Amino acid sequence: MNATLAGDVVRAGKQARERFYDARGYGRPVDGGALELAPVEAAHLLYRGDLDDVDGMDVGEFLASAAVSEVAFFVYKDLRDRGFYLSRPAPTEGNREADVDDRSVDFEVYPRGKGPWDDEVAYHVCVVSERESVAAESLGDCVLAVVDEESEITYLETGRPEVSGTSASEIPPVQGSLLADRVLCWDPPAELYERGFYGQRLDDQDGGDGAVQLSLVEAASLAHEGVLSVDGGADAVRERGREVEGDRFDRRLRVYERLREEGMVPKTGFKFGADFRTYADVESVDDLGHSELLVRVLPADHVFEPRDLALDVRLAHGVRKTMVFALVDDEGVSWVDVERLTP
Amino acid sequence: MNATLAGDVVRAGKQARERFYDARGYGRPVDGGALELAPVEAAHLLYRGDLDDVDGMDVGEFLASAAVSEVAFFVYKDLRDRGFYLSRPAPTEGNREADVDDRSVDFEVYPRGKGPWDDEVAYHVCVVSERESVAAESLGDCVLAVVDEESEITYLETGRPEVSGTSASEIPPVQGSLLADRVLCWDPPAELYERGFYGQRLDDQDGGDGAVQLSLVEAASLAHEGVLSVDGGADAVRERGREVEGDRFDRRLRVYERLREEGMVPKTGFKFGADFRTYADVESVDDLGHSELLVRVLPADHVFEPRDLALDVRLAHGVRKTMVFALVDDEGVSWVDVERLTP
Repeated sequence: MNATLAGDVVRAGKQARERFYDARGYGRPVDGGALELAPVEAAHLLYRGDLDDVDGMDVGEFLASAAVSEVAFFVYKDLRDRGFYLSRPAPTEGNREADVDDRSVDFEVYPRGKGPWDDEVAYHVCVVSERESVAAESLGDCVLAVVDEESEITYLETGRPEVSGTSASEIPPVQGSLLADRVLCWDPPAELYERGFYGQRLDDQDGGDGAVQLSLVEAASLAHEGVLSVDGGADAVRERGREVEGDRFDRRLRVYERLREEGMVPKTGFKFGADFRTYADVESVDDLGHSELLVRVLPADHVFEPRDLALDVRLAHGVRKTMVFALVDDEGVSWVDVERLTP
Repeated sequence: MNATLAGDVVRAGKQARERFYDARGYGRPVDGGALELAPVEAAHLLYRGDLDDVDGMDVGEFLASAAVSEVAFFVYKDLRDRGFYLSRPAPTEGNREADVDDRSVDFEVYPRGKGPWDDEVAYHVCVVSERESVAAESLGDCVLAVVDEESEITYLETGRPEVSGTSASEIPPVQGSLLADRVLCWDPPAELYERGFYGQRLDDQDGGDGAVQLSLVEAASLAHEGVLSVDGGADAVRERGREVEGDRFDRRLRVYERLREEGMVPKTGFKFGADFRTYADVESVDDLGHSELLVRVLPADHVFEPRDLALDVRLAHGVRKTMVFALVDDEGVSWVDVERLTP
């Protein structure tokens, strides 16, 4: 059986419709009983030997042509191999012509056992090559299928998590001294560290009391709330933060304050290469439990290299945490989480 | 007891020499029986209450002054708490005046139980704040002590590893077809994948034979060796690589070829956020074993953010591999490895 390329689709006859659509969920029936296949579907049928050629091209020639994206083919094949039926999203009035590029990377993947004739979608998959960049703002509702240079596929499920906890604490007033890149509180109230989990003891061995060092974000937040007194006030701390970190300091401070408002305790994520790790339910530092999230703060217009995403998500998984990106713009902070998925 | 600041050192008298140098390895004796302390040593003695003041300053005032770096103090204190004696390197003719900045971040740490009167150094420690950048070329002989914003210290030991293995294979000629971002070999000799561990099978389930996809670095290397025939030859593959990756492709290809020359099999490190993972002793893909290194390819003049270093090293440790940076310049490739250290 053979088929012909017509613009950005491949057309086949009535017999193809019965064999490929009705029986195995390939393509989309069109008027007159024929079948319209996405090029990637045609490539898969060629690969399997179900189609003989498309305009005289065999699978090798078809994949080497501009008609079909090899990375889309690898993902399509992988999902078929895993037992899924999947389609390109149905063209609508708006995107039929204009948004071909948008549509070109997407698959609607049906739950196992379901197909295009059902009304259920398990995953909305967006295909990218490891070399393509991915806008942070495009994440949150899709599964990224990243094809690496050796054609292995990593599926990354993205979502919009609720970020909230039950940590809360009343901290009595505290005095601090501003150093180059932190604030030292030589004689703080015990609640600062023990209940609020602010800062770090200068001497872990000390037991109950002793000096506490605050990071500049912690100090800026506490000074802004009026809890911390420091020469020059909150402004001096923020100014120092900008000196050492530039714009990033303001972004991190906004995310820090937002996390505290939501009942989370953010602590540095440095050892994990992130901005913060967070604890949702802190009552006392003696009973901390496990930090649940790794938070990376980014401007909302950030563009990822897929490799950096893979690195973050892999690391978070290895330490049993969830990777969350805090995207900051003038409107505020929005959260996107990303986890490995095995479809 | 008190002391006075004199330029970039702190001076104390003969009694201090006996109490601090002879008994506990602080400072350096100078002519006339007095003691010269590095500011960070004086800060530690103030903190412990062994010195009452330096020019009237208590520990809080001294740390808030420009005389001493707080991050150097945290590292000094941490290493003392761990039972080490340590010194600033002895000033030499050359660096006494000119290289104060260079010396300001360094400690020579003596083996436990040894001190400045012995002739043995366990670690050469370079102190950096998490916000400072670190030149890749400065690594290889030192331990980085990175102080994060919450004053926790991460020690990273850097070295210059031997990178070599015993993998070798003879591959018969193979034909390939150049796609957008890889080369497909529809009918390759079994040795290509099974002995050389080049590429990836299109169908894992296939068993013995079937199409193999090569990454562009693999294909460029094989075409350069005359093993792979492809339209346009090695030049066409390299050209395609530069189109999709720019300069990075040439750097990665040099490292890839160098690794193969050294008897290592490099495969993509994408899932670990690296350029390559490597296998030192491949005889057959059926008996692969564990890949030992994660390799990140960088231009030799690369400058790290400590956080990125921490991320790479943490991830590598989590998957029981060693993180190696391949630094590329016109002279060739040099290797630096980085591992977490608990002193």
